[in-house]
Amino acid sequence: MKIIDGGVTAPKGFSASGVYCGIKKRKKDLAIIASDRPCTVAGSFTTNVVKAAPVVWDQHIVANEATVRALVVNSGNANACTAAQGDADCQAMATLTADALALSANEVLVCSTGVIGVPLPMIPIAEGIEAAAKVLDASRQASLDAATAILTTDTFTKEVAVCVEIEGTQVHIAGMAKGSGMIHPNMATMLSFITTDATIEKPVLQALLGTSIIDSYHMISVDGDTSTNDTVLVLANGASGSASLSPAHPQWEVFKNAFDYVHTALAKLIVRDGEGAGKFLEVTVQGAKDKQAARTLARSIISSSLVKTAFFGSDANWGRILCAMGYSGASFNPRSVDLYFMSEKGRVQVVEAGVPLAFDERLARAILSEREIVTLAVLKEGEGQATAWGCDLSYEYVRINGEYRS
Amino acid sequence: MKIIDGGVTAPKGFSASGVYCGIKKRKKDLAIIASDRPCTVAGSFTTNVVKAAPVVWDQHIVANEATVRALVVNSGNANACTAAQGDADCQAMATLTADALALSANEVLVCSTGVIGVPLPMIPIAEGIEAAAKVLDASRQASLDAATAILTTDTFTKEVAVCVEIEGTQVHIAGMAKGSGMIHPNMATMLSFITTDATIEKPVLQALLGTSIIDSYHMISVDGDTSTNDTVLVLANGASGSASLSPAHPQWEVFKNAFDYVHTALAKLIVRDGEGAGKFLEVTVQGAKDKQAARTLARSIISSSLVKTAFFGSDANWGRILCAMGYSGASFNPRSVDLYFMSEKGRVQVVEAGVPLAFDERLARAILSEREIVTLAVLKEGEGQATAWGCDLSYEYVRINGEYRS
Repeated sequence: MKIIDGGVTAPKGFSASGVYCGIKKRKKDLAIIASDRPCTVAGSFTTNVVKAAPVVWDQHIVANEATVRALVVNSGNANACTAAQGDADCQAMATLTADALALSANEVLVCSTGVIGVPLPMIPIAEGIEAAAKVLDASRQASLDAATAILTTDTFTKEVAVCVEIEGTQVHIAGMAKGSGMIHPNMATMLSFITTDATIEKPVLQALLGTSIIDSYHMISVDGDTSTNDTVLVLANGASGSASLSPAHPQWEVFKNAFDYVHTALAKLIVRDGEGAGKFLEVTVQGAKDKQAARTLARSIISSSLVKTAFFGSDANWGRILCAMGYSGASFNPRSVDLYFMSEKGRVQVVEAGVPLAFDERLARAILSEREIVTLAVLKEGEGQATAWGCDLSYEYVRINGEYRS
Repeated sequence: MKIIDGGVTAPKGFSASGVYCGIKKRKKDLAIIASDRPCTVAGSFTTNVVKAAPVVWDQHIVANEATVRALVVNSGNANACTAAQGDADCQAMATLTADALALSANEVLVCSTGVIGVPLPMIPIAEGIEAAAKVLDASRQASLDAATAILTTDTFTKEVAVCVEIEGTQVHIAGMAKGSGMIHPNMATMLSFITTDATIEKPVLQALLGTSIIDSYHMISVDGDTSTNDTVLVLANGASGSASLSPAHPQWEVFKNAFDYVHTALAKLIVRDGEGAGKFLEVTVQGAKDKQAARTLARSIISSSLVKTAFFGSDANWGRILCAMGYSGASFNPRSVDLYFMSEKGRVQVVEAGVPLAFDERLARAILSEREIVTLAVLKEGEGQATAWGCDLSYEYVRINGEYRS
């Protein structure tokens, strides 16, 4: 696998654009991604019972349509809690995009992110769709424009692109994302859009996405709130001319690993850009009973407010980590746990077999004062291993999320 | 039911004491509660896999002994993550207390709260047990001393006492508690001890406690972390001379309501004293499909970091409340939800049938600037109703929990 510079236009046959239409005050706020030929599609959506209108639209398209051709996204307004008007506005976005690109509406996916409970401003959106459709382009800049236009309070664009060789054919997978959690008032959404020029059938793509999200987006936590708009969409257009990929293909693992890499890389970028986050935390659990137990333990540690504030304070507060493992729901023997903290400043073991060690507090503090910190918990129960990513809980988080919406 | 001034010594036959023995720097740190006759006992314990030594001890006693006579509690040290030494020290606390009171060790319950991972200082504890046993007393002051000695970073003692008349007999129920969550580094525990002079058989008492905790301690949230030491214990000594109480008794509901009241009152006191908490939040869900759905929805709202920071900022951010209901796991129709905020400053409806209303933002801000705020979510799905209690998420929470342990 080769990591390349690029975004969603790196795979063949895809074009993109990002424009300003006036939903936000100044910044780009509308993006289109389109393919020159039909794409198989897979999607993963928020489990929140309160779903924004575009989530319902996309779920229907992904469940019922064999292929799609385009994706339109606006930022600045989530089109959530907007009742029947929201459904109509979402459908209008699809229709306007379809008209501009000479497609039918059910070939167009729709996403929205931003404030909740405010009707979409359809006049600027209609103008924006027209403008964005006109400047669709397969260039590097076009993918960057699109990646910019989906941001809300993110501080940087999040793009990943890779290339793998499958039986002599160059196959590309690329993606762009915007952050979730540590979220600005009413702006709660994780969006991730993946393009690939691989040839892959729809059920295979959906199954692949289903496993890939488990160790990527499901292993990050910013503040534990699941938004009304969270969406991951994958479009595969076959433009590489690759053979149809599936687990039966001899080089499936090459493709699968690259696909997983793109999701994991985007998930980590989301955490790095958590608002108010000063530190990037990685938690690895090894030697758990099985992989699922390892995931549950790692995620429980990274999600604990007490653990997160301890990292904010550069405090080697191992008791909170054992405590978070204890209430995770995974079964394990607490007296089998070794615990380490690591960063560029070194490595310190703080717990052995569940019992605290007399460790060097100055070294520990130096390690935890770094901006990237790894926590390693080693159990002796099996082969299960998993890694989760998160960020600290800071004054800045409270400031950002406590301030008045207006 | 009559609410009376008093603590765990209000029920007949109980005495208490609280002394300073030197586990903490200055404040009282060791308490004993004792009964002049055998008590039936019920307990509820942390679900954390990492259990402190005294939790394991008490679970064994409650499961295996018909009656107990005393309870010894230290603060300042949790005796958690202390391995075999912790088990031995816990047993020594029981034995020392039994010796001082002429009981056997398996008649003594033990609780500890404070720092994790540090062996108990057994010399001061032994002196403290001896001193506390000598000053055991049935006075009001004695219960206050005991309630003081179990505190860690709590800012006030938490005591409740009530009296009910059952067939002409005065029956008392009383309790004391210490706070959990918003907890000081490594000091994570909720303890609640209830005494009653009712006559009640052990299985009946355990069943009663099992239902009572569901709508009291299980409906409060401070920061979502479940400690290694959480313990609720009930001692019933029959000294009132009441008939044996059970659901078959004609006045069972009178007793049950008083028993529930004591637990709920203590649970609310714990939330009011959450460190860093500036506001007391009550969330009531009405009209849910059933009681369990109402509980799940109310608890999800009160536990959301985003909701808590919004209340800290006096922000009528109803979108976060709908969002937290949506990911709670309970099924409901989002378009059936009416939402209200209330406080001493008035009442404002912000959502009707899932759609935002154009409400008076100035009034909403005035309402949410109060220190006690009620959120009411009304669904149209059934008769389920529940209330949860919590507090805001403030800068102070981050400061307290982020600062270095030493």
